Amino acid sequence: MIYFDVVVIGAGHAGCEAGYATAKMGFKTCLLTINLDVVGQMSCNPAIGGLAKGHIVREIDALGGLMAKIIDKTGIQFRMLNKSRGPAVQAPRAQADKVMYRLEMRKALEETENLYLIQDIAERIVVKNGEVSEVILESGNVISCKKLIVSTGTFLGGKIFIGDKTYPAGRTNEIPSTTLADSLKDLGFELIRFKTGTPARVHRDSIDFSKMERQDGDEPPPFFSFNPPKRKVEQIPCYLTYTNEKTHEIIFKNIHRSSLFSGLIQGIGPRYCPSIEDKLKKFPDRERHQVFLEPESRYTVEYYVNGVSTSLPVEVQYEYLRTIKGLENVEILRPGYAIEYFSINPLSLKVSLESKEIKGLYFAGQINGTSGYEEAAGQGLIAGINAALALKDREPVVLGRDQAYIGVMIDDLVTKGVDEPYRMFTSRSEYRLLLDHYTADKRLMPIGHSVGLIDDETYNRMLEKYEKIEKYLREVVSLPVKKALNGDFFTHFSSIDKSKVHTLEKLLKRPEISFEMIAPYLREGYLTEYETEVETAVKYKGYIEREMRRVEKSKDLEKVKIPEDFNYNISGLSREVREKLEKVRPVNLAQASRIPGVTPASISILYLTLTKKRK
Amino acid sequence: MIYFDVVVIGAGHAGCEAGYATAKMGFKTCLLTINLDVVGQMSCNPAIGGLAKGHIVREIDALGGLMAKIIDKTGIQFRMLNKSRGPAVQAPRAQADKVMYRLEMRKALEETENLYLIQDIAERIVVKNGEVSEVILESGNVISCKKLIVSTGTFLGGKIFIGDKTYPAGRTNEIPSTTLADSLKDLGFELIRFKTGTPARVHRDSIDFSKMERQDGDEPPPFFSFNPPKRKVEQIPCYLTYTNEKTHEIIFKNIHRSSLFSGLIQGIGPRYCPSIEDKLKKFPDRERHQVFLEPESRYTVEYYVNGVSTSLPVEVQYEYLRTIKGLENVEILRPGYAIEYFSINPLSLKVSLESKEIKGLYFAGQINGTSGYEEAAGQGLIAGINAALALKDREPVVLGRDQAYIGVMIDDLVTKGVDEPYRMFTSRSEYRLLLDHYTADKRLMPIGHSVGLIDDETYNRMLEKYEKIEKYLREVVSLPVKKALNGDFFTHFSSIDKSKVHTLEKLLKRPEISFEMIAPYLREGYLTEYETEVETAVKYKGYIEREMRRVEKSKDLEKVKIPEDFNYNISGLSREVREKLEKVRPVNLAQASRIPGVTPASISILYLTLTKKRK
Repeated sequence: MIYFDVVVIGAGHAGCEAGYATAKMGFKTCLLTINLDVVGQMSCNPAIGGLAKGHIVREIDALGGLMAKIIDKTGIQFRMLNKSRGPAVQAPRAQADKVMYRLEMRKALEETENLYLIQDIAERIVVKNGEVSEVILESGNVISCKKLIVSTGTFLGGKIFIGDKTYPAGRTNEIPSTTLADSLKDLGFELIRFKTGTPARVHRDSIDFSKMERQDGDEPPPFFSFNPPKRKVEQIPCYLTYTNEKTHEIIFKNIHRSSLFSGLIQGIGPRYCPSIEDKLKKFPDRERHQVFLEPESRYTVEYYVNGVSTSLPVEVQYEYLRTIKGLENVEILRPGYAIEYFSINPLSLKVSLESKEIKGLYFAGQINGTSGYEEAAGQGLIAGINAALALKDREPVVLGRDQAYIGVMIDDLVTKGVDEPYRMFTSRSEYRLLLDHYTADKRLMPIGHSVGLIDDETYNRMLEKYEKIEKYLREVVSLPVKKALNGDFFTHFSSIDKSKVHTLEKLLKRPEISFEMIAPYLREGYLTEYETEVETAVKYKGYIEREMRRVEKSKDLEKVKIPEDFNYNISGLSREVREKLEKVRPVNLAQASRIPGVTPASISILYLTLTKKRK
Repeated sequence: MIYFDVVVIGAGHAGCEAGYATAKMGFKTCLLTINLDVVGQMSCNPAIGGLAKGHIVREIDALGGLMAKIIDKTGIQFRMLNKSRGPAVQAPRAQADKVMYRLEMRKALEETENLYLIQDIAERIVVKNGEVSEVILESGNVISCKKLIVSTGTFLGGKIFIGDKTYPAGRTNEIPSTTLADSLKDLGFELIRFKTGTPARVHRDSIDFSKMERQDGDEPPPFFSFNPPKRKVEQIPCYLTYTNEKTHEIIFKNIHRSSLFSGLIQGIGPRYCPSIEDKLKKFPDRERHQVFLEPESRYTVEYYVNGVSTSLPVEVQYEYLRTIKGLENVEILRPGYAIEYFSINPLSLKVSLESKEIKGLYFAGQINGTSGYEEAAGQGLIAGINAALALKDREPVVLGRDQAYIGVMIDDLVTKGVDEPYRMFTSRSEYRLLLDHYTADKRLMPIGHSVGLIDDETYNRMLEKYEKIEKYLREVVSLPVKKALNGDFFTHFSSIDKSKVHTLEKLLKRPEISFEMIAPYLREGYLTEYETEVETAVKYKGYIEREMRRVEKSKDLEKVKIPEDFNYNISGLSREVREKLEKVRPVNLAQASRIPGVTPASISILYLTLTKKRK
């Protein structure tokens, strides 16, 4: 028997952040992995970020996590999506070098004091007096611990499907975790069977890129981190091609052989990440679907065939891939497959991601019903922070829905539960203007700093940054246009009516004017390195203020706390509403109001009861 | 169904060389691996080379294989062992960076034309009309092929043991190959159960190196390859410590809990690579055993604890490791374990490493009953070369026992079989003076060149090298000392009797004189870059000539070929001898004479019968 303050089960994207956080916050942490050689592995596509997901990565960075730093260090292509649209829906996205990402992640973890990456398999969790006490490992080793974070990804009861072939695995040909599922069941957790899938990986030299559309990264590369690396990135392009009628014909002809349609797969898949056979079934009239060829690493010849994830037999995968323009001679290196795995019902968790029933037991990532590296990492970081805070007898960090996408996600999970793998979208947030990725540092660094994951130097630089922006808004943006800009501006943009734009602010508010357009005409001393932030603040001021008022209003309900042991046996609440409330046990009335099926009338009754009680 | 000329099962040290050879020799090759992310993995110690093994690596290089190149590119410490002794027992050895070794190996393979590394698991081999025809894969995919090379390492029926814990695996927590063993059995192969083991890997920062003896590499680093890289190696030291009485006490107290002594393990282990519990049982009076701490990679904090491989329970591993000086606070990252696996009986193979019964089916590496990366790689290369030569309708390469350690090894395997994992030693060669590692290029590059694995440029440089050496021996070494050396030599080495060393040759023959000693006194124009080669040629001339005469003599027996279908039903041969001969089916009388139990008298009878037949 050995002792660690914290044990994390699983070193994927959730586990890595969780273990890093608890160790960095001062606690001796064991990060358990089935295979030390594939820590921080990207099981599916070689990319990080994108809409909503890129926002989460920025939030992780602001809170002091690792994902942004590691992708910045190792990424092979960086882009800013939706640059021409509003800041709320812009997002950074990077192509990852899978090999270097996992190496650098492991290195970063191993260089963290108090953190021990240990290769073994958790078989059973021992609970004593309602509190986590030990983890029993496959090797026979036993670890006693105070806090345990479970982040098993697709490994918990993992089972692979390719056509009529099926076998247990956590990723193809990697050992799954089997007995731990029984242990969780024995501890009273409800297990849900989910499914996900991945396309084939193919050989670079068997692709004819000349037949495809090239997609390059942005220059300079838009990094994720507040402390971006000083590296010169030799960016590698992706390529776009399409399925066609012939592809679809082959898939339709063989669709009964897909594990998904033959009835072999029972688990529920992610609606927004369907397999190619799924897409064809749902949109039978579409003539083509996009297929992106994405490099997996500078070190290997593997390309990821984004858009055609599948559970069709390998021979059919060959057949349909070879109908695609540029893939006529493609060689498959790893076949596509579907995988079923166990999640727990996240309704059994508190907003801190701790189990409601078992003290010291936290869950993060795919096991909570989500899909996606970024979603996993965001939860891992919060679970780690909260486990460490609990060890310090401090209150958990709970991010508000107006504060972070991570907050939206966790609130959704523990309030609404999941009936399919949960993926983040900007549309899931009712305050997305407040959550643009540029301001993640402002919103969340104070928290990262207060828990000890953001150092003073970084924190102070963030404060300075916003002081500078405020000062600029106050002192420059308010200036008359004539003072701020040289005369050439109106010569060049002669269609603008001078009389309507007295100040820089008024000018910037015009939808057709961007900061980039006026920057060249700014008089000396009036330049800023924070163009985007200033432009957003000016252009969206009204919208942002309106959203902040909405936030304020909703705070009224948030202020009405519900005690953990609150008795919902109140007259006026239907049995259904009562059962739902008892299952979720919301922490305040705002959360209660978001539970599906809990009516406004029930909220009124609860409000009365709770405020009466308080008095 | 897809087609490849050659399929190689397993991408360990044997498989990598095999697949590289067949692809490089022009055949479309599929190198199958269970997990693409750990190709060319070093399952055990992080080192390549050493006595006899270093010789094999040089031979692999001379034949055109990869191992020397990859370790040269990625090694983190290089030494020449036994520098003070004769050249026959000198050998290069390197500490490997496991992470970079496997990455660069994969890269080298993926950059090889015709070679496809494919992730899948071979489940069954289909044989048609006595010839290999297809491989059926776990994914459901089927590959038809002309040649198949099986190099499964410890994965065939692999089973791990740690104390009383046991579970199927190819390495800890990696999926083993299971059904393939049945397929081989069905094809008539006799399977042998062998066992090997490995010690714990521990965390760098939990080791107190200040309490240990430091071991550095040589400067400049002695590389393995004929074409050494131009790299500056920042060499990393190893550290030496020892077990002690307390360590031994703990192990003895728990020895009944070792899988080896509790009776759980049935397989036979390598005699020369025993576990620590084995060592203590065999040498109960030794007060201490060496323990080397070897870094596993620049990229990780793992250290390999060389000398204490074990199948004791993890808690006992902790307990005894922590009694060792410098390991008082050690943290284990991966526990030590024993592993059982299947080999075939190598008596069922021809000297070409092809199956005697099934055409086109080759075996290489641990599956042939050997242990060690280098032994595996050497066989892999030969199996690959011979599979490719067969596809070209050319005779196989069979290395003589006087030609290469690889030749000794393969001859031993197919002539004597194995009753324990076979490890190479210089003492296994009766001609070890001829096989010193310096001359591997001379001996084997002509073969590597003729099969197409050594390019013209390299081959010609080798020829030039030996021309230069010959010329030097002829024109300089024969010179009178007075002409070759300046006078200071005898002033400095005043004890040497001038009258007895008229020529440089006579001087160099003296055991107390090395080339290094005389080099500073050589007159201008008489320097050579091949000091070692020249010195060896001079000093050992008599011995080498004597060995060459022995070789010549033995060739008489080698010349007497035995037809493949020879009928051993000859009067005068005992049933035992007949059975042994029938099992091995030696290719000539020399091989027959090496079969254990085949008497000189039987050889005489065979000689008479065979020479009579020829006439």
